[in-house]
Amino acid sequence: MSRAAAPLAGLVAPVPGLSLRRLRIDTYQEPVAYLRSDCPVCRSEGFESRSRIEVWLGERHIVATLNVVHGDWIDVDQLGLSEAAWCALGGSEGAPLRVAHAQPVASMSAVRAKIYGRPLGIDAAQAIVRDVVDGRYSDIELAALITACSGDRMDVAETIALTRAMVAVGQRLHWNSELVVDKHCVGGLPGNRTTLLVVPIVAACGLTIPKTSSRAITSPAGTADTMETLAPVALDLPAMRRVVEREGGCIAWGGAVSLSPADDVLIRVERPLGLDSDGMMVASVLSKKIAAGSTHVVIDIPVGRTAKVRSQQAAHALAHRLDAVGAALGINVSVILSDGSQPVGHGVGPALEAWDVLAVLQNQVGAPDDLRQRALLLAGRVLELGRKAAPGDGHALARSVLDSGAAWRKLQAICEAQGGMRTPPHAAYTHVLTALHQGRLIAIDNRRLARLAKLAGAPKSPAAGLVLHAPLGAMLSAGQPLLTLHAESPGELAYALAYAESQDNIFSIQEA
Amino acid sequence: MSRAAAPLAGLVAPVPGLSLRRLRIDTYQEPVAYLRSDCPVCRSEGFESRSRIEVWLGERHIVATLNVVHGDWIDVDQLGLSEAAWCALGGSEGAPLRVAHAQPVASMSAVRAKIYGRPLGIDAAQAIVRDVVDGRYSDIELAALITACSGDRMDVAETIALTRAMVAVGQRLHWNSELVVDKHCVGGLPGNRTTLLVVPIVAACGLTIPKTSSRAITSPAGTADTMETLAPVALDLPAMRRVVEREGGCIAWGGAVSLSPADDVLIRVERPLGLDSDGMMVASVLSKKIAAGSTHVVIDIPVGRTAKVRSQQAAHALAHRLDAVGAALGINVSVILSDGSQPVGHGVGPALEAWDVLAVLQNQVGAPDDLRQRALLLAGRVLELGRKAAPGDGHALARSVLDSGAAWRKLQAICEAQGGMRTPPHAAYTHVLTALHQGRLIAIDNRRLARLAKLAGAPKSPAAGLVLHAPLGAMLSAGQPLLTLHAESPGELAYALAYAESQDNIFSIQEA
Repeated sequence: MSRAAAPLAGLVAPVPGLSLRRLRIDTYQEPVAYLRSDCPVCRSEGFESRSRIEVWLGERHIVATLNVVHGDWIDVDQLGLSEAAWCALGGSEGAPLRVAHAQPVASMSAVRAKIYGRPLGIDAAQAIVRDVVDGRYSDIELAALITACSGDRMDVAETIALTRAMVAVGQRLHWNSELVVDKHCVGGLPGNRTTLLVVPIVAACGLTIPKTSSRAITSPAGTADTMETLAPVALDLPAMRRVVEREGGCIAWGGAVSLSPADDVLIRVERPLGLDSDGMMVASVLSKKIAAGSTHVVIDIPVGRTAKVRSQQAAHALAHRLDAVGAALGINVSVILSDGSQPVGHGVGPALEAWDVLAVLQNQVGAPDDLRQRALLLAGRVLELGRKAAPGDGHALARSVLDSGAAWRKLQAICEAQGGMRTPPHAAYTHVLTALHQGRLIAIDNRRLARLAKLAGAPKSPAAGLVLHAPLGAMLSAGQPLLTLHAESPGELAYALAYAESQDNIFSIQEA
Repeated sequence: MSRAAAPLAGLVAPVPGLSLRRLRIDTYQEPVAYLRSDCPVCRSEGFESRSRIEVWLGERHIVATLNVVHGDWIDVDQLGLSEAAWCALGGSEGAPLRVAHAQPVASMSAVRAKIYGRPLGIDAAQAIVRDVVDGRYSDIELAALITACSGDRMDVAETIALTRAMVAVGQRLHWNSELVVDKHCVGGLPGNRTTLLVVPIVAACGLTIPKTSSRAITSPAGTADTMETLAPVALDLPAMRRVVEREGGCIAWGGAVSLSPADDVLIRVERPLGLDSDGMMVASVLSKKIAAGSTHVVIDIPVGRTAKVRSQQAAHALAHRLDAVGAALGINVSVILSDGSQPVGHGVGPALEAWDVLAVLQNQVGAPDDLRQRALLLAGRVLELGRKAAPGDGHALARSVLDSGAAWRKLQAICEAQGGMRTPPHAAYTHVLTALHQGRLIAIDNRRLARLAKLAGAPKSPAAGLVLHAPLGAMLSAGQPLLTLHAESPGELAYALAYAESQDNIFSIQEA
């Protein structure tokens, strides 16, 4: 449009180089960069706090949110990086860096269009997901995206577009078997650790089940946390492939293989917002299953007042969406609605849940029968879906494999293949909580129970958590044990106890 | 529900005290706290990065987002605070602090309900606005709130509820006059500095106009920035009251009087998201006018392809909403749709816009006539609304007050009352950009022009910005000056020049 009327020579102020400093600040997952306010680059580039900047190290770069530092605890020629930024960029202390304004995120215009009511098409979904995976979205932009796609604002067609986009942006595993099965639980039920039973049962029957699981995000234990008390779970893809080719199944941590890189980013904002809409959940679950190469998947939806899905109506709507999106993307989905009114098994916490699993596999007296029955139901359905049992015969086949010890031998073999079987740890500090008065146990608040286990240290302290002593419906006498808290330190035990005493409705006991 | 079966004595780990450290990190407005990962409180409380924590100093407290530090540049017994957190909490270096988990924000359930499709009622709006003002919302929660209320998702009834809630949470000024006028421009037009003309014109006619204005947020100059080159603007409420009682009007920075504390918080996320929906905008504007005690307000909506409001249809929808919400809240709103196709006046940047204002007030030859005409139009409407002129006669009255020098004397008096009149600064470095070829100037991109002025240093460097030499429609010869860049440092000038040369469509010149 125009040209400077005179040459620029002499006008360009020399900008001294910046060097990298790792500040070891954990900003959760958002990459943050720190620059002194009196740093020449800050002024010449017009950077301000909250500017989105590109940080270049040779040919590599990341996009980070800037925090301007007015203090002198960082040097004027240093660019500090948060842990997320440091890990994403690589590099070493003191490495020379360049910085620039980040281009505005082009696909945010598609997000704004969605906010203003335009349906999300496949092109928009792909542009958005690509930018999300490339780390171009700030946390507040992610929050806007997630909000715009929550509630009833994403229909089935949009969910299909988003799922396709999330599949397209990641890798996709292929297996030698034509039929690859999987199971997934929509979550929200403490102790519901059926995966560690279903995988060995169906693998023992000859099916291929390359299972990836998550660590806990808001719960006291994820399946990966529980499995980790029995064997290593941080398998990379070649290791995972070796385990599955040898044993038919694995239970690996999904974070290490990153099957849905978009989901890994979205989740960091979804969780703190407490937004868990059907559309985003279906796209997240099915994109991961498709990326894992699954052809048939059984999805367990626990329904209960304090579970994630709270009504039969909500469960049916979710089931319908799972079916429709699965059909569109060529994956066979079978949904089971299960009882979500109380925790499953006795233990809540990584090691305590592993002990429950071992009791069921080893057919111990006193093994939690609810966990066993749920696992048999799910494994039976998987076996039918995987054509190892005729419709209606899956449950019996699953039971025989469990009762014979074949499933227990298979879990041991899988643990060995994943790097060696371990014995789950025991907590050093325990404390029994008892009923204040006699009566019938009529309700358990899953959410507060989960919080109690977390306060005791789970999942960071793998032996921490709690063990339940009374099921729903039990008649209790005053002073009868309700649960035992387990902790690895006295401070954590005290903290959990204080919480338990401040809450009067984790257990509802109706006097007779 | 239960009680510990044994006393807790001896279980509680002693937690050493934390002391305050000001880290001078500008995280923009979100309060952030920094704790070492090996700090005992971190572990005993189960704090993680992104935890929302309460920081207590005696009886005062704030809610902050936690960043966990794995380095040793902060002591293990220190709690670091970002600037926003430091300013909100008060206190001094080394002051003893206590911390706790923040309660989940209760009103976020109302935000989720809105996301899931429930209309925003007055109770929900009040609970939300109260929590927002109390600093309980994290930035991602604010982003979710704003997204949920954007697009066509907030109807007139919800806008009324939100506006009422925003008025209720702040203070409300009262004046001795029954009739208090105001003017507001929806913005998006560089150089549109009519306030500095309208206020002295209508105050000179005897109306009460306690005007508060914002500083630039995304633009090269806000009205407060421009006024600040002429007089102090950071007046507190008693000072503002003294000025208005003496001179009938003022031009103060709204941030210092905080008439809409909710808006001050929301804006920090609205702007970076680029979400500027009618509902939020109307609630923001009218809540501030009502809080300022205004009874009659003229609202200027510039309409143009690169202005904030881009079509007549959009302008009419916005005007309708302003009318309806104004009527519900008992404030008389009069809307003017104006030409938003090009910048107003010659200068863009705080001081350069002030020089334009002075030229108009002093009736200088070469004073920008477009700025003069817009100001007369708006001032005329305000005078009619304020019953100083009959319908149709306002423009003539405004012109006579401007031509007679009465408006110029009134601005000088207002500046003196605000703390003393100043002469706007001149930039040390200038550079002329010229047309590459002959032709007619058929379009100016307001957004890129604003960016160019910002790169030259505006508004932080008050003398920086640019002066336009050719209006839309002008016939240009090759090499004819288009604009002059003004900067306070050679680096900023070079930076703006580099941007200008990289853009080929700030000015569209059609060859004849």
